[in-house]
Amino acid sequence: MSERDAALLRRAPLGVFDSGLGGLTVVRALREALPAEDIVYLGDTARVPYGTKGPDTVTRYALGCAKHLVRRGVKAIVIACNTASAVAPDRLRVELDLPVLGVIDPGARAAVEATRSFKVAVLATSGTIASGAYPRAVAALSTRVETLGQAAPLLVPLAEEGWTEGEVPRLAARRYLEPLAHRGVDVVVLGCTHYPLLRDVIEGEARVLLGPDVRVVDSARATAEDVSSFLRDRGLARTPEGAPGQTHLLVSDLPRTFDEVASRFLGAPAGPAELVDL
Amino acid sequence: MSERDAALLRRAPLGVFDSGLGGLTVVRALREALPAEDIVYLGDTARVPYGTKGPDTVTRYALGCAKHLVRRGVKAIVIACNTASAVAPDRLRVELDLPVLGVIDPGARAAVEATRSFKVAVLATSGTIASGAYPRAVAALSTRVETLGQAAPLLVPLAEEGWTEGEVPRLAARRYLEPLAHRGVDVVVLGCTHYPLLRDVIEGEARVLLGPDVRVVDSARATAEDVSSFLRDRGLARTPEGAPGQTHLLVSDLPRTFDEVASRFLGAPAGPAELVDL
Repeated sequence: MSERDAALLRRAPLGVFDSGLGGLTVVRALREALPAEDIVYLGDTARVPYGTKGPDTVTRYALGCAKHLVRRGVKAIVIACNTASAVAPDRLRVELDLPVLGVIDPGARAAVEATRSFKVAVLATSGTIASGAYPRAVAALSTRVETLGQAAPLLVPLAEEGWTEGEVPRLAARRYLEPLAHRGVDVVVLGCTHYPLLRDVIEGEARVLLGPDVRVVDSARATAEDVSSFLRDRGLARTPEGAPGQTHLLVSDLPRTFDEVASRFLGAPAGPAELVDL
Repeated sequence: MSERDAALLRRAPLGVFDSGLGGLTVVRALREALPAEDIVYLGDTARVPYGTKGPDTVTRYALGCAKHLVRRGVKAIVIACNTASAVAPDRLRVELDLPVLGVIDPGARAAVEATRSFKVAVLATSGTIASGAYPRAVAALSTRVETLGQAAPLLVPLAEEGWTEGEVPRLAARRYLEPLAHRGVDVVVLGCTHYPLLRDVIEGEARVLLGPDVRVVDSARATAEDVSSFLRDRGLARTPEGAPGQTHLLVSDLPRTFDEVASRFLGAPAGPAELVDL
């Protein structure tokens, strides 16, 4: 590659997609780790949620999102959705000629680094749990650590609806955490990028049910570290000179809540989301 | 039309679709009202829910479902989804050359017939409430009856997940019903075909908050009556001779729960759902 082409590639944006709002938790971590990068984020709000759907359907949707981001000229794709990261990355790598990074391996690494009891629990969507992706990723990092999976499907609509405080999310979190009590778990992985929006209630219930020292980890920061190392190792990272990077938001449908939650969530006005046809 | 063509048309199945499981509440009522009819039911489980999505997206999905049913040779289409009935029927009638019936007008009629205080409340999805379809339908039937709308978005995932008993659905129902207290409402319309799955908790909370005499009505039976009159008036109804009609289930994705809930819900084994590509 010529030096000029390499410079153009470095300047290209990062593509990030999720089924809806949840992936913004990853965007926030990417903004902190890689402030110079431009990010194009696509929330597939026309087909949210992914976590209750089958692997073929989720893979088809993920491919549609990724192809749209490729048309926007991204240099790499971050799948900011656990369900899609669990079932779709191999297919995306085969079909698209660019790097594809997911959130499962970083989440597994964060869990393995945090556990002292060698027993971690993963709260995730039905699709992620059914895929077995977390136990596989944890086993690839450590043969000593055991992984318990627990599907927590209602947490996605609660997060999407902004219903993140009070009795209903607390009781829902409790119901999903109860089967994990008295099993020696000391780490709970938020295995869905929507769940950090409910972190306070999940953490509160986890301390009551699993013990006061339980640690709740999410994959957002670990994913941002992965993406950062990856870009630097391959000479694809922007040099932090001049203006900070921009975030451009795309959605496949325009639910009224998206812009409002996105601004609040990213901690900075991101401008109204652009509607795209997938 | 020749007598032979008319006989063939009468023998054709009825097409019914919904975003997921909810429309089965309408199928059950249709089975009771029209036992001789064959029914082809399509649950768009790859794109559920519709109620949080915008009118253009829902109309596109509804058109996809309806066109698939037309290819299956149905004689008429029942939109067994309030959100799609609120935004899509005109477009479907323009694009498809066959009768299209929805659930909003029958639901409005049931409410107007039941109210004594001339004040009815409608619990529905955000999309249905935003469309204003219920207040319009009620106003077309009676200028005296006032309609209060209340979006209850979390009830759809609760119904789809089968979480229909206990504290979480009860508290969710209470939160949605609380703004309707002390307003003189004596009828609550279940303005989403998923909500009858949660009827017990909704009815219980409605009696506490709105008064012991409040009536909860759903549009399933009224829709079945509408469809029945429509078919008979146009000579399209099957004569009830010989074997009872069959129900054939189609889904656009295969969530693990569909077959199980469908059998339980229809009260008779319906056979495994067939996966279709929309």
